[in-house]
Amino acid sequence: MSDADANRETMISSELLYDGRVVHLYLETMLLPNGETAKREVVRHPGAVAIVPFDADGNVILVRQYRLPAKQMLLEIPAGTLEPGEDPLACAIRELQEEIGYKPGTIDKIGGIYTAPGYTTEFIHLYMASDLTESKLAQDADEFIEVVRVSLDEAIRMIHSAEIADGKSVSGLLLAKALRA
Amino acid sequence: MSDADANRETMISSELLYDGRVVHLYLETMLLPNGETAKREVVRHPGAVAIVPFDADGNVILVRQYRLPAKQMLLEIPAGTLEPGEDPLACAIRELQEEIGYKPGTIDKIGGIYTAPGYTTEFIHLYMASDLTESKLAQDADEFIEVVRVSLDEAIRMIHSAEIADGKSVSGLLLAKALRA
Repeated sequence: MSDADANRETMISSELLYDGRVVHLYLETMLLPNGETAKREVVRHPGAVAIVPFDADGNVILVRQYRLPAKQMLLEIPAGTLEPGEDPLACAIRELQEEIGYKPGTIDKIGGIYTAPGYTTEFIHLYMASDLTESKLAQDADEFIEVVRVSLDEAIRMIHSAEIADGKSVSGLLLAKALRA
Repeated sequence: MSDADANRETMISSELLYDGRVVHLYLETMLLPNGETAKREVVRHPGAVAIVPFDADGNVILVRQYRLPAKQMLLEIPAGTLEPGEDPLACAIRELQEEIGYKPGTIDKIGGIYTAPGYTTEFIHLYMASDLTESKLAQDADEFIEVVRVSLDEAIRMIHSAEIADGKSVSGLLLAKALRA
C-alpha cells in the first residue's frame, strides 16, 4: 500500500452550478493520475450528526418521518445538519432535544460515515447517548416527526427485514450493537 | 403507529435545476401535513449496488480510491451505479468484474440503504459474494482503483478506528459480520 497516494487527483478549477438551501452544487475539473482531466459534480454539504439514544429501559428512540426522495415514511435514528461553525457534539445534543425532547447525560462518539463519497462531501458524525432527561427544543417548522421506541435487538431485526433502510441508521445501530455486545 | 401516514407530504410541482452526468437536481414544491408548502431540493439518482466479496481464504476484498468530495483516498467495498433499467444483481456481478476482476459463484442480497434520504433518492442494494473465479471487465476510464484484502475482523476493526468511513461499507461489512456470526 506504499503507493496508495499515486491515485490522487488534483483540482484544476471549480464552478458553482447551484447554491440552494440544502444542496450547493459545484462542477470541479480534476487532473487524473494518468494526466487526463475529468469533470466531477460535487454537492458540498456542511456535515451532519446522528445519534443512537437509549432510554432508561434500554430501548432505542427512533424517529419516523416522510422522506420525499425515498417517497415514503422512513424510520431513522435522530439526526440533523451542522449549523455553520457548530461543534458536532453540540449539534448532537441540540438535535436530541429538538427531535425527541431529551438531553443526554452521557454521549459518546461511536464512528462516522461519508454518506455518498462519489458526489457529496457530507460526513455524518455518529454518537450513542443515554442517561436522558426531558428537555424540549422547538423543531424546525417544516419537520413532522413521530417518535418510536424499540429494543436494540428489535431495531437490528428491523434492519435485516428492511423496515429500517436509512444508511446512517443501519451504520449507527449496528455500531451500537457491536459496542454493547 | 396507526396514524404513521398522517405526516405524509404531497408533491405540487417539480422543476429541473441541473441535469448533470451524475447529479440530476430538482426543486420540488411540497404540500406539508399542516397545509403549508415547502420547497425541497432533491438529487435524483438511478440507485447503486455494493458488495462484500469474500475470497477463498475468507478475506474481504476492498477497493481504495481517491474520493474528491472527501478530499482523500477511501477504503470501500466494491460498488457502482445502476445503468438505466439494469437489474441490481446483474449490476453487482458486473461491478465485481470491473473493480476487482472476479465473478461470484454465490451472491446474496443482505440489505439496502438510502444514503442520504434528506436530499437524494439514491438507494444502494447490498450484497455478499463468495466462490469467486477470475473474470476481468474493463474499468471506467476515469476510475483508478487499488485492491486491498483484509480479514472480516480486521475490516470491522478498521471501522471502529475510522480507517473505513464510507457509509455503504460500514453498513455492508457490519451486516456481513452479523450474518456470518
